[in-house]
Amino acid sequence: MNDLFLRTCRGETVERSPVWMMRQAGRYLPEYLKVREKVDFLTLCRTPELVAEVTLQPVDLVGVDAAIVFADILLPLEAMGAELKFVKGDGPCFPQPVRRAEDITRLIVPDVDETLGYVFDALRLVRRELNGRVPLIGFGGTPWTLAAYLVEGGKSKSFAHLLGWSYRDPKGLRQLLDKIADVSITYLQRQIAAGAQAIQVFDTWAGLLDRQRFREVALPSLRRILDSLQNTVPLIYYANGGGHLLAELKELPVNVLSVDWRLPLDEVRQLVGNRLTLQGNLDPTALLSTPADIRQRVARLIEQGRGGGHIINLGHGILPMTPVDNARAFIDAAQELSVTNS
Amino acid sequence: MNDLFLRTCRGETVERSPVWMMRQAGRYLPEYLKVREKVDFLTLCRTPELVAEVTLQPVDLVGVDAAIVFADILLPLEAMGAELKFVKGDGPCFPQPVRRAEDITRLIVPDVDETLGYVFDALRLVRRELNGRVPLIGFGGTPWTLAAYLVEGGKSKSFAHLLGWSYRDPKGLRQLLDKIADVSITYLQRQIAAGAQAIQVFDTWAGLLDRQRFREVALPSLRRILDSLQNTVPLIYYANGGGHLLAELKELPVNVLSVDWRLPLDEVRQLVGNRLTLQGNLDPTALLSTPADIRQRVARLIEQGRGGGHIINLGHGILPMTPVDNARAFIDAAQELSVTNS
Repeated sequence: MNDLFLRTCRGETVERSPVWMMRQAGRYLPEYLKVREKVDFLTLCRTPELVAEVTLQPVDLVGVDAAIVFADILLPLEAMGAELKFVKGDGPCFPQPVRRAEDITRLIVPDVDETLGYVFDALRLVRRELNGRVPLIGFGGTPWTLAAYLVEGGKSKSFAHLLGWSYRDPKGLRQLLDKIADVSITYLQRQIAAGAQAIQVFDTWAGLLDRQRFREVALPSLRRILDSLQNTVPLIYYANGGGHLLAELKELPVNVLSVDWRLPLDEVRQLVGNRLTLQGNLDPTALLSTPADIRQRVARLIEQGRGGGHIINLGHGILPMTPVDNARAFIDAAQELSVTNS
Repeated sequence: MNDLFLRTCRGETVERSPVWMMRQAGRYLPEYLKVREKVDFLTLCRTPELVAEVTLQPVDLVGVDAAIVFADILLPLEAMGAELKFVKGDGPCFPQPVRRAEDITRLIVPDVDETLGYVFDALRLVRRELNGRVPLIGFGGTPWTLAAYLVEGGKSKSFAHLLGWSYRDPKGLRQLLDKIADVSITYLQRQIAAGAQAIQVFDTWAGLLDRQRFREVALPSLRRILDSLQNTVPLIYYANGGGHLLAELKELPVNVLSVDWRLPLDEVRQLVGNRLTLQGNLDPTALLSTPADIRQRVARLIEQGRGGGHIINLGHGILPMTPVDNARAFIDAAQELSVTNS
């Protein structure tokens, strides 16, 4: 039984740093693509047997130290009544975006077991099939990041609808974030009840905000979620492009702070202190290089991660065009080169 | 004659801080849209009389303290032989992206006067029509940022082609950056000869790199450009998402560092020192709020900008959906509320 990941989350001294990859169940694996030939993305998400299959693939094929349930952060929004489409090449899309306070009433606070039960079924199934080999992570998006998708409706460069709303009517937007938080709290608690042994919350768009606005706009609803999960399982917070937010993020009631690749981990540690385990942060495009180059970069990453708990990971999700051998080189190097941080 | 902008670039003590807006000649102005009804984007760029017309619009209609010639940073790439298209809604697109060392030979180092003469003609015309009212800025993209567009070919979320290349074959990519720099040097020198009184280089995608990789990959070709322009006119370097690069950026041989909105200007000043004038940095989506709110934010921005030269600007380009009255509120507040920084 490999519980390195959980012990590192809790700040315990470990024999070596565990490693996994964000989006490790995904399109870079031919075995995943084979499953996707049969079903579309949302059908896959809603079929626990298939979710279990793709969730286990990186454990069996690449040898990661933790599994993360295959799902999409936007599923709770769909459960709230927002129509969600995945357009090939364009990603997720909400044909009827929520852009003002009046629109919020269109959203419901659903019975989570009824609408998202398939996620909990999948978690139970994965736990059974993992049979203790590695821990299982559940996850969700932060209200701010979920709202970013729901308000923009589709691809966005400037996030003008979201940010414009946040300036024009911060109270109205906070109502939306709070409604999303209401659903997220139950959603994540049920994930834990169904077997998730850690929870990661993804804040992909935190970096759009300066520190003061992060505190005023995004943080209150996020804190409600994190507070509701205290004393359950280890909590991980991930921000993309959040280097300028670290002074704020280090105060979050979580066990692990997961960071992107823009700041070296030793500088992050200096800014954050060592109360928190750090997770990250190899640039995912570095996996488009060669196994030898990847190994060197992992060695440097481990060096930079010393001085506190470190879960080796990428700084963002693994890219679909990543050669599987390079993903394996990353995992192998991490497991071979990391030694006790005690 | 209002030369506040140039004096502030040079670090002189001024009566008040000057103000202009990135993309101030653009779609938020009905008068600009009227011009665009007659011609497409590239035709507009290539017609000096129309360029002069839209370049002067924000001077006449909004009252900015500097004009910036209307152009696109990608024009030099087109002059190098890369076919460039503007697809409505999708932005610029290179149907034949440059993705490996062999592709670079497809690019030529053109006679800049022949291929980009329309930009210099426009600068001469604008200078004449401005007749000294406000200074005129010329500009270009950095090799790294131009390459980002040329290598990806179109919209990109992960910049996997560019970044993958940078890891796999850094020498090859640097050849591309150097070839772009060769053309940029002449292009910017000719802009100065044609009347540009300051040069801003845009590094929209600098923030994709960590500090070490910025130094290794992006900086050498950028430095060649900046060095070639020493002792000519004031130089401004703009980075988006570059907060983590400031320790490097403060060493650039420029007069002005232009920053996005993610870090408050007083923190930037602390990290950068006061050799450089700072330019920025109101969040452009703040202009989607109300004039009263904008005025308050400008007051705070001016406060945060004290302690060194400050050119008031946005942290990124003004958005097409910005109400003109809000743009005016920004300019008016900046001009009314800023006082000597001596």
